[in-house]
Amino acid sequence: MERLRTIVEGTDTPAGRTFDLVVQALILASLATFTLETIPGLSAQTKYVLDVVEVVAVVLFSLEYALRVTVSRPVWKYSLSGFGLIDLAAILPFYLRLGIDLRSVRVLRVLRLFRILKLVRYSKAIANVRAALKSVRSELVVFMVATVLVLYIAAVGIYYCEHEAQPKAFASIPHCLWWAVATMTTVGYGDVYPITPAGRIFTFLILMLGLGVVAVPTGLVSSALTRGKVGGADVDAGEGESRDNR
Amino acid sequence: MERLRTIVEGTDTPAGRTFDLVVQALILASLATFTLETIPGLSAQTKYVLDVVEVVAVVLFSLEYALRVTVSRPVWKYSLSGFGLIDLAAILPFYLRLGIDLRSVRVLRVLRLFRILKLVRYSKAIANVRAALKSVRSELVVFMVATVLVLYIAAVGIYYCEHEAQPKAFASIPHCLWWAVATMTTVGYGDVYPITPAGRIFTFLILMLGLGVVAVPTGLVSSALTRGKVGGADVDAGEGESRDNR
Amino acid sequence: MERLRTIVEGTDTPAGRTFDLVVQALILASLATFTLETIPGLSAQTKYVLDVVEVVAVVLFSLEYALRVTVSRPVWKYSLSGFGLIDLAAILPFYLRLGIDLRSVRVLRVLRLFRILKLVRYSKAIANVRAALKSVRSELVVFMVATVLVLYIAAVGIYYCEHEAQPKAFASIPHCLWWAVATMTTVGYGDVYPITPAGRIFTFLILMLGLGVVAVPTGLVSSALTRGKVGGADVDAGEGESRDNR
Amino acid sequence: MERLRTIVEGTDTPAGRTFDLVVQALILASLATFTLETIPGLSAQTKYVLDVVEVVAVVLFSLEYALRVTVSRPVWKYSLSGFGLIDLAAILPFYLRLGIDLRSVRVLRVLRLFRILKLVRYSKAIANVRAALKSVRSELVVFMVATVLVLYIAAVGIYYCEHEAQPKAFASIPHCLWWAVATMTTVGYGDVYPITPAGRIFTFLILMLGLGVVAVPTGLVSSALTRGKVGGADVDAGEGESRDNR
Repeated sequence: MERLRTIVEGTDTPAGRTFDLVVQALILASLATFTLETIPGLSAQTKYVLDVVEVVAVVLFSLEYALRVTVSRPVWKYSLSGFGLIDLAAILPFYLRLGIDLRSVRVLRVLRLFRILKLVRYSKAIANVRAALKSVRSELVVFMVATVLVLYIAAVGIYYCEHEAQPKAFASIPHCLWWAVATMTTVGYGDVYPITPAGRIFTFLILMLGLGVVAVPTGLVSSALTRGKVGGADVDAGEGESRDNR
Repeated sequence: MERLRTIVEGTDTPAGRTFDLVVQALILASLATFTLETIPGLSAQTKYVLDVVEVVAVVLFSLEYALRVTVSRPVWKYSLSGFGLIDLAAILPFYLRLGIDLRSVRVLRVLRLFRILKLVRYSKAIANVRAALKSVRSELVVFMVATVLVLYIAAVGIYYCEHEAQPKAFASIPHCLWWAVATMTTVGYGDVYPITPAGRIFTFLILMLGLGVVAVPTGLVSSALTRGKVGGADVDAGEGESRDNR
Repeated sequence: MERLRTIVEGTDTPAGRTFDLVVQALILASLATFTLETIPGLSAQTKYVLDVVEVVAVVLFSLEYALRVTVSRPVWKYSLSGFGLIDLAAILPFYLRLGIDLRSVRVLRVLRLFRILKLVRYSKAIANVRAALKSVRSELVVFMVATVLVLYIAAVGIYYCEHEAQPKAFASIPHCLWWAVATMTTVGYGDVYPITPAGRIFTFLILMLGLGVVAVPTGLVSSALTRGKVGGADVDAGEGESRDNR
Repeated sequence: MERLRTIVEGTDTPAGRTFDLVVQALILASLATFTLETIPGLSAQTKYVLDVVEVVAVVLFSLEYALRVTVSRPVWKYSLSGFGLIDLAAILPFYLRLGIDLRSVRVLRVLRLFRILKLVRYSKAIANVRAALKSVRSELVVFMVATVLVLYIAAVGIYYCEHEAQPKAFASIPHCLWWAVATMTTVGYGDVYPITPAGRIFTFLILMLGLGVVAVPTGLVSSALTRGKVGGADVDAGEGESRDNR
């Protein structure tokens, strides 16, 4: 039992590492079937193969869940943890589907997505990133709020410039917010864009002032990540963090 | 009276903090009604609800304004400050609307937007950002000027490359400036783009040289923000700044 | 004479500074007429006003040129310097136009653009930026070359993926280079884009690897600019640079 | 023989440097013919010229290959190295084409692309970049994995928001991945974009959270490159690296 716990919960023994790799491969396989299922016009044969992979994955995930519950000390610790609930949510929809009508619960399958988060669980390097994020947390919040303000101001401004010229594309401030998001992130789909001189000049001004605001958080994270390394403190900080992580 | 001033102007007591939170919630509610009003095809009932929220918000903002004027020492200090004028501008349009014809003053409602700035008033973390911006101010100015030059050169260059091939999209240098803004910020709506080989080669060259110029200010702010933190000086600098801020 | 030289070449006396400001205002006015002239459908009156501004600007620029030649010691120093040639190139097209046929030399007017560079002449803060650029020059060159390689690889790759499916949009590797430029800079006009699964997967891969390469130069400049400031060395370096500048 | 080796393998003597420059010029010429050949509608004469350049280039490349094999000590060292295989792959397709049917091996010509990598061989400055990349390798991996996760989550989310409204553009999760790539890199071609309010709100949220993740690697490389220089260690590190490089 003690040995089983080392394999299931630990990552220090070869057996423990193999167990984790198998689980992760299973998650990837299950995500692949989830993705491929949505392609329209699959042959009956392909659908059958995907269904088989799906059933096998769920059965193995259920075994994994049972194992984790069994080795957990105190026994409720795993089932009530965040990852325990996610693991349950990842297999439950399948069993619910067997009992109730298929269609009405299909939306629950989105929860399977959280299986991705399992992958996050094992990497030590992430602790480094988390420490960097923590060190610039308050600045990140300021710029997130500033981004929302800039987007709103952009939307109101363009509404007054373009609403009359393009009453459909810039129908309301919520519509203009969509333009603001696509423009200030520089995605620029081209589904809506200003055509009046006033709207274009306003777009230029808000881009000059706003691009910095929207793009600063990214720069902050990068700077924080490399800054931590200058002092050589990243190894200690990383290990200290990862202890909390388990 | 002294106690009232602590609540209205200060953020140190629980009552003061509650007062600020209520005002901020009110600002958000008022912005929400402003935003939703612009959606076309609202039912009469929805419009009525929005009007009620609007009236309630203005009444409460008026009370807040009266309170702030009352507790201000010397008495004219608040009303003549930047925020005092913004607060007045945020409620005045409503009262003006009651007296004069509705339509002619509608444009004044844009001023309500400045209520957003009230949100800026309370955050201490912003002082940090202001100090960082100040430390790279002259470089920011240089790159802002350089950005305008790059945009102008891009516009003139593309005018000579594309005007003959697309006399409508690239009709004049002001038209080309719109292309330059959309291109150099990498928004790229796709409403105007070069089609001649010369225009495309010019676009490539100006992007290679110009992207750096346009994007540097963002990087400057990020670097300045994290650099301040290395020396551990950000706390002092931040507090020194925030004192001026009140 | 000595006094005149101080005014024309120096920026330390009030008179010298006023002279520079007048010249810069003149450059902006002349660029404005150049820009507005290209708008189609101007009234005869507007054209007349623009022509007058143009003539006045050229006359004043000629006076300035004559002044600068006069005060220059040794006398040929200014006329053979980079700025002397630019100043000449900025006024010469006008006089050429008087003698020869108008249309054939119109293209020479592009040279007026270099007047913008005069603006560059006076700012001290630019020296700071130049020092930063110099310190990362070799890395900038490496990434510029890498950018060209990435663009070429992207063009060849997409040619093999998309040429058969879209023989017109991806007609040849030069055509694909245009797609590569628009994509790797994230401008994304939307005039050409991959439609085959192979082309889309290739686009994803080349974006993952290439975005970093294309965007690194910008980050380099920002980092270099703020790094120089940490050591407090930027003032000295800046002044040392600006001396060469005059 | 010893002298020949110095010329062919070294870059320290004038003759060695000339040899390298000639080879690089040849690579560029050969890439130019490869590029121009793909343009449709070339005249017979142009095709003939391109073919001649191609043959000359291959002959010279073959001579270079023979030379390198000859001077290599031990003799198999070069032919089994990475660059030896690339050099062989760059000339082999031409000889294969002579024997077998032309069309079936045309795809092999893509390998000529690797000639570009020869250019990489000679620059010392690249060692600097490699050291910087190495120092942030683990963070780069974390953010690459995070980027893939963000793209997948974006694709699944938009599939549930938009599939019903646009069953063709958002036909399956693989289709949505294409939208996710174009959006999260901010390329934004505009071939697919959300039209439902749910899809647009989701796009806003995923952009706010995801842009940082996707763009951080670029910032990391820039910071690492300039950070290395602060300590003055870049010269030593660079030279140490370049020794392994030969």
